[in-house]
Amino acid sequence: MNRILNLLLFILLPVSIAAAWLGVSDTILFILSCAVIIPLAGIMGRATESIAIHSGPRLGGLLNATFGNAVELIISFFALKAGLTSVVQASITGSIIGNLLLVAGLSFFVGGIKYPTQSFNRTIAGTNASMMVLGVIVALVIPSIFTFKKPEIAHALSITVAIISLLLYILGLLFSLFTHKQLLNYTEDMEHEDAEWSLSKAIGILCGATIAVGFESEFLVKSIEHVSHVFGWSQMFIGVIVVAIVGNAAEHSSAVFMAWKNRMDISLEIAVGSSLQVAMFVTPVLIFLSFLVGHPMSFVFAVPETVSMILSVFLITYLSLDGESNWLEGAMAVGAYIIIATGFYFV
Amino acid sequence: MNRILNLLLFILLPVSIAAAWLGVSDTILFILSCAVIIPLAGIMGRATESIAIHSGPRLGGLLNATFGNAVELIISFFALKAGLTSVVQASITGSIIGNLLLVAGLSFFVGGIKYPTQSFNRTIAGTNASMMVLGVIVALVIPSIFTFKKPEIAHALSITVAIISLLLYILGLLFSLFTHKQLLNYTEDMEHEDAEWSLSKAIGILCGATIAVGFESEFLVKSIEHVSHVFGWSQMFIGVIVVAIVGNAAEHSSAVFMAWKNRMDISLEIAVGSSLQVAMFVTPVLIFLSFLVGHPMSFVFAVPETVSMILSVFLITYLSLDGESNWLEGAMAVGAYIIIATGFYFV
Amino acid sequence: MNRILNLLLFILLPVSIAAAWLGVSDTILFILSCAVIIPLAGIMGRATESIAIHSGPRLGGLLNATFGNAVELIISFFALKAGLTSVVQASITGSIIGNLLLVAGLSFFVGGIKYPTQSFNRTIAGTNASMMVLGVIVALVIPSIFTFKKPEIAHALSITVAIISLLLYILGLLFSLFTHKQLLNYTEDMEHEDAEWSLSKAIGILCGATIAVGFESEFLVKSIEHVSHVFGWSQMFIGVIVVAIVGNAAEHSSAVFMAWKNRMDISLEIAVGSSLQVAMFVTPVLIFLSFLVGHPMSFVFAVPETVSMILSVFLITYLSLDGESNWLEGAMAVGAYIIIATGFYFV
Repeated sequence: MNRILNLLLFILLPVSIAAAWLGVSDTILFILSCAVIIPLAGIMGRATESIAIHSGPRLGGLLNATFGNAVELIISFFALKAGLTSVVQASITGSIIGNLLLVAGLSFFVGGIKYPTQSFNRTIAGTNASMMVLGVIVALVIPSIFTFKKPEIAHALSITVAIISLLLYILGLLFSLFTHKQLLNYTEDMEHEDAEWSLSKAIGILCGATIAVGFESEFLVKSIEHVSHVFGWSQMFIGVIVVAIVGNAAEHSSAVFMAWKNRMDISLEIAVGSSLQVAMFVTPVLIFLSFLVGHPMSFVFAVPETVSMILSVFLITYLSLDGESNWLEGAMAVGAYIIIATGFYFV
Repeated sequence: MNRILNLLLFILLPVSIAAAWLGVSDTILFILSCAVIIPLAGIMGRATESIAIHSGPRLGGLLNATFGNAVELIISFFALKAGLTSVVQASITGSIIGNLLLVAGLSFFVGGIKYPTQSFNRTIAGTNASMMVLGVIVALVIPSIFTFKKPEIAHALSITVAIISLLLYILGLLFSLFTHKQLLNYTEDMEHEDAEWSLSKAIGILCGATIAVGFESEFLVKSIEHVSHVFGWSQMFIGVIVVAIVGNAAEHSSAVFMAWKNRMDISLEIAVGSSLQVAMFVTPVLIFLSFLVGHPMSFVFAVPETVSMILSVFLITYLSLDGESNWLEGAMAVGAYIIIATGFYFV
Repeated sequence: MNRILNLLLFILLPVSIAAAWLGVSDTILFILSCAVIIPLAGIMGRATESIAIHSGPRLGGLLNATFGNAVELIISFFALKAGLTSVVQASITGSIIGNLLLVAGLSFFVGGIKYPTQSFNRTIAGTNASMMVLGVIVALVIPSIFTFKKPEIAHALSITVAIISLLLYILGLLFSLFTHKQLLNYTEDMEHEDAEWSLSKAIGILCGATIAVGFESEFLVKSIEHVSHVFGWSQMFIGVIVVAIVGNAAEHSSAVFMAWKNRMDISLEIAVGSSLQVAMFVTPVLIFLSFLVGHPMSFVFAVPETVSMILSVFLITYLSLDGESNWLEGAMAVGAYIIIATGFYFV
């Protein structure tokens, strides 16, 4: 599997750069850049994982928590630079609902085919549920509602929300990696694993892959407008569904694979942990960056986006609070994702 | 009790048909048809139950899950034919909130008078809670919000939602009747029961009662507009409160009776199971039928309806997730029903 | 601590009355009246507590449940008399979100610094959660949504909601003080405590403090408009944040102190119990009073107020349903409070 992806990557990466240089059709460039980003994201994830194992559980946890959504951050950075703030908001939305509904749903479903009931740590599920209520629902609803009659306060309010979200994200790391480490057994699995690559090799691969993702992201962003026009898809649909799936495909497959091996804690950590990271780390950082590049973005998302994220949080907390999952719960989450995706398709 | 209802039925059924034929006042026809439908629904329920027992637990479960809300379906079909789509939506709303708040509430309250704390299966409660978040909240909110700026997509989106809801309803049956039967003990009680009627007698009674309900539904639907005018009630109030109570009275009384006998699992199965059936089976079927009869109905309900259903789901999931009930929880649910009913009265 | 507050009170109370009589600047009067109300509220709380201990657990529980938010009620009464209904609604909002997020949050956080995990009664947490869904969410959302197209029904609907809320509040007392007393261990702690003051002394102090709070409330209310103008704060911000903190500061400090002593049940009883009391006892009473004083107030709050209360209920129920707390959960609640307070500052 990895070999085929690597081979694909070694062929498509130069092809896509050549295509961009030769000025081929934006549709082809869009497809090529998507096809390259997916395996690159996987490689970046494996390199981060290797560095994390070499760094020991605590620093490793921090690294994973910081670079886990690096691809997302890079794509969004180039979209922000191009002034496509609404595409960035859409891809944040897509990341959160995709991780919560599609990834967790597929994990529950695939794992549930093999095992009648799968268990996971209820304490983590509860802490994550509360964090999502705060980091997704409160952080999104307050700016949307309070700016309704006074749109001019959106940026000031967004910065406050961004600071508090980021602060709580850091406190959450402090909690899970330091003060309540033993309670959560957060890093247990990592300690018994061997690193895939040596530290220097992993750092080298990470740097190379990051630069390549940077180029591909620029191609992707550049071609979105054209693709939107040709396929008749709204930019919101491209952001919420296409970009989000491309940016997260690597993680998605490992979460489902872990569920199949009945390691539900890791599977959920990828799905829910990644959503929290996008909401409480990537989004605040992007808001700060958006002011630097001169295209300020706020926490005021489009109504369908806000509502979809709220519903995703509710559904997944209901599904996960009991610490057990089965295939039907997976089917419900995937069903909800399809309903929401169809909504974004028509909008 | 049954005897008195049967006697009432044998007198009122011909009277109501004669009244309709003689063209009496619509107010009298409305009251007569209501008075006839209530015991007829009870008889249909008992006939379905008998056929289910003869058919064995699995096929029986399927039968109950399909014909459990037949009266509802018939009334709504005639209302759809008459183009009263908003009355149909109102009676769906009324069925869901009535089952969740009034029936479950009265069951908790009445049972709680006799027993300080009553217990029920937490796994079923959890699965049902997640199903309701999906089948009621997601299925209603997404179409309402996403069509806000683009009303023309309501029908396309509703059909997608209807297909997914129906599919998940079928998967839910597969889960509770086949793959996770032992976990839920869903059919246990039924296995130890004797059928009230023989199979052929039950089928005969079911057919006869269905035809009679068909006639009465037509009278009921025909007289709604007049009654709305005479009593000064909005069509929404008639649909949400009056029609919903008429169509569900039989079930309501058996749920409360089961709570009194401390069989809370059956009681909740009637209340919550019936709401799920209305949301995820009856509503999708009615949406498909609405296109056939030429008066298309969508999943976009009136705002007060959508909000009432969402609040009902939240309240009942909070009340039931711990697997225990008491009289105060019952009083809360009934209190919420009265607040919502008053709201619909004034609107 | 108490001595310093008492001394402060004995100096500032006459000063503030003199200042009001001499007609000093409204800003100074506002600050003086706030500074006097805070220790007065503490004294009223201690007097009520003493009377409650002398009266035995049941009557004592009733007294606490009735006079626990007396300061709130007095300030609001004078604000209603002055026609400042929106300030009253804002201070109700502020009391509920302040108790749920700031008080419970600080209690979780401060207690969590000393103890890794603190436990409390899950049954009470569950009952309180359901009560809040009913008494805050249903009671606020139904009037807001149903009056949207028909504002003229706001008062009729509010009175219905007020009656049902009050009735359920009384049923809740019946439940916790009589029928399910042993289940909740509600009054256990009180039984082993000694009263601070004799019955007659406590009644005397309560009467004196109540009269003084009455005067100070009039000064406070009189000066709000001026302060709003001078500081550039909206009346909503003053009501939600300033008045609510002044009226509840005494309770706040005892809740946090109890958490520090690891008596989380009392701490949560103050925080959550007090919110329920404001929502289901103080608010209905104020609605009835508002008709008497000729400035009718309804259950239709401003949208930011309604949304903030709903989010507070959701967050605190997610944080408390598992019957355990830690410092991170406290930080989340405080973080949510800061986000909401910032929102009200900008609005």
